[in-house]
Amino acid sequence: MRGAFKPCGVITITTDFGHRGPFVGIMKGVILKRFSDATVIDLTHETFVHWPAEAGFWLERSFRYFPKGTVHLAVVDPGVGTDRSVLFVVAEGHAFLAPDNGLLGGVINAVDATVFKVDKEQIDRLALDNVSATFHGRDILAPIAGEIASGNVAAQELGRKAQDYIPTLIDPPEMRGSELNGIVITSDNFGNLITNIEEKMLQPFKKPSVQAGGCTVPLCRTYADVSPGDLLALVNSLNVVEIACAEHSAAELLGLGRGAPVVIVEGI
Amino acid sequence: MRGAFKPCGVITITTDFGHRGPFVGIMKGVILKRFSDATVIDLTHETFVHWPAEAGFWLERSFRYFPKGTVHLAVVDPGVGTDRSVLFVVAEGHAFLAPDNGLLGGVINAVDATVFKVDKEQIDRLALDNVSATFHGRDILAPIAGEIASGNVAAQELGRKAQDYIPTLIDPPEMRGSELNGIVITSDNFGNLITNIEEKMLQPFKKPSVQAGGCTVPLCRTYADVSPGDLLALVNSLNVVEIACAEHSAAELLGLGRGAPVVIVEGI
Amino acid sequence: MRGAFKPCGVITITTDFGHRGPFVGIMKGVILKRFSDATVIDLTHETFVHWPAEAGFWLERSFRYFPKGTVHLAVVDPGVGTDRSVLFVVAEGHAFLAPDNGLLGGVINAVDATVFKVDKEQIDRLALDNVSATFHGRDILAPIAGEIASGNVAAQELGRKAQDYIPTLIDPPEMRGSELNGIVITSDNFGNLITNIEEKMLQPFKKPSVQAGGCTVPLCRTYADVSPGDLLALVNSLNVVEIACAEHSAAELLGLGRGAPVVIVEGI
Repeated sequence: MRGAFKPCGVITITTDFGHRGPFVGIMKGVILKRFSDATVIDLTHETFVHWPAEAGFWLERSFRYFPKGTVHLAVVDPGVGTDRSVLFVVAEGHAFLAPDNGLLGGVINAVDATVFKVDKEQIDRLALDNVSATFHGRDILAPIAGEIASGNVAAQELGRKAQDYIPTLIDPPEMRGSELNGIVITSDNFGNLITNIEEKMLQPFKKPSVQAGGCTVPLCRTYADVSPGDLLALVNSLNVVEIACAEHSAAELLGLGRGAPVVIVEGI
Repeated sequence: MRGAFKPCGVITITTDFGHRGPFVGIMKGVILKRFSDATVIDLTHETFVHWPAEAGFWLERSFRYFPKGTVHLAVVDPGVGTDRSVLFVVAEGHAFLAPDNGLLGGVINAVDATVFKVDKEQIDRLALDNVSATFHGRDILAPIAGEIASGNVAAQELGRKAQDYIPTLIDPPEMRGSELNGIVITSDNFGNLITNIEEKMLQPFKKPSVQAGGCTVPLCRTYADVSPGDLLALVNSLNVVEIACAEHSAAELLGLGRGAPVVIVEGI
Repeated sequence: MRGAFKPCGVITITTDFGHRGPFVGIMKGVILKRFSDATVIDLTHETFVHWPAEAGFWLERSFRYFPKGTVHLAVVDPGVGTDRSVLFVVAEGHAFLAPDNGLLGGVINAVDATVFKVDKEQIDRLALDNVSATFHGRDILAPIAGEIASGNVAAQELGRKAQDYIPTLIDPPEMRGSELNGIVITSDNFGNLITNIEEKMLQPFKKPSVQAGGCTVPLCRTYADVSPGDLLALVNSLNVVEIACAEHSAAELLGLGRGAPVVIVEGI
């Protein structure tokens, strides 16, 4: 069955909480209360705040590096405390749990996924007592993740299959004439600008060149293919186009960040 | 017995060490040497440096979300290397280990706690060889936490019950006339201003309003109760009053931070 | 045998990846796929980017605080994707795995180490399929670390002993006349300036004084030996000279950082 999920005991957590305050630690405490043998891994807690798209992007690019049977819990949740739903998605033997706000849209689009909405009754049954209006990561998602990862609760118990979920917040890259138009999703610790342009989208181009911030840069294989300080582009380890500056920050050099247009053109 | 403590194998760590350097990792190494099955959880390492009060505040608000039997180790320790004592506190089935500098004052005041001072002889027996003058988190607290969490050492062996510990560094909120006066303790990654005013302290008010930075804001239920960019106050998930700005940073908008006065008044 | 290594199941990770993006989390996922019982500890991910020396410095100062049998994986790798080798070092019952770019030079110099270069064939056998050109931490080092830590692969299988590795990137402190000349390696979260001058190098001095940034400061025992705001120097918990400012930041006060000269002179 496509929606089958067999837990392996691993849970990843992705949030926009940063590292100030005890919020991520508290979620781990709640998980351990439900499932003392859980192996909990931080994916990242430094995404843009209030923008579920970046968390979803990282998750979609990352999940296959974890063991099958991993539960991926993600919380970027500006609508916390409203009546938005909670999604539970099963794909390729992995499970995903997040608010229904577009966060999981990229995962759902990218793979053969089965989407469930978690029933209100199941939330009432599994959540902490006295659910707060501002921290569903702790009160609802962490306890459910613990119950699923421990095998105490099966996916099919959680709710019904759903089609009416919030779609991804990021438009896919678009061909306009002979140019492919994408955007910068985010940058990493090195100032590499990471785009939503996947390797496979470069197929129409014989010799793709990458345009951003008024510069045109060649597509290389790795950072050391150019001299330190020089701009380059490459298909990175997550299979998307990245604009980099060897041993320096492309984000700083180009003054670009989230949402900046990136265009693939035929090189000459 | 009130001071009974039965370890569950979980240890939390709270420090002002940040994430630069190997200091927190080293503490975990020391714990694993004493107790290889320990489950170690970071509560936070980004508190104000040299100010034990924030670490204690987070700990007091957080500990109940961890399993009973957790050892909570906290180090914010400007007096490291002096002859200040080490406290071991047992409360509600949890244990707390920290320098005697006020860090645990909030925990001790908030709950029915038994306070021990760790005997000098026990420190000598359990600490690493060659205790340094500048890193008791590694040399004294981590090894003791490992021994306690593993069950090798019982609480009552550690020292004698004490009354003469350093009290909390934060004055509790105070009624002046019909107004309740508290302060901002810290802000979180979203710029929410988190105060020391607990939900139960609002009981005298029919319709509490919150004043800070020259603004008066209504008490709402959750962020989405106002429009993005609008100020609000709410009782947050840790049961204290928080001043927020929907999808923006209240700390930035109001220019406020640690220590800023916050007043609860009767709304109209 | 000097090169013997008996794994205990613990792996530490040291990188310059920071906490933005899923890169460290992904490495942990890859490790768990190979070795589901691994205990993975972050040493630090906030070293200077593209400068392997700081990561190596922390590692050399830290490794003994972990259990014997720990695998220490480190990735600061500006040459990723070129044909630089991968080193596997065994010393004092610990194993170290890193690019051959000088990162491990300090460890190798400091202890009685056996150095192996990992064979290309072993990399092909143990690495992930489709090794990327930009993330060998995930594709090569994490899977090998998992296989070594689990005991599936023995050290001697990995490759041949090597003498021709890249040496340390940091010159050791040097006596010039009666003065010992070292440098600042990095600073920590408190703004303490941490040097490459080891305690044992102070032996020629009767009463060592420390000069940096135009100031001469006395060598004290701990921070509280001077008044808050005063400069001091001390031999820190990692056995190197550190310049500090009690309850403040010496890095800010002196305007110094990585590479700044530090001189030990005879005090008067």
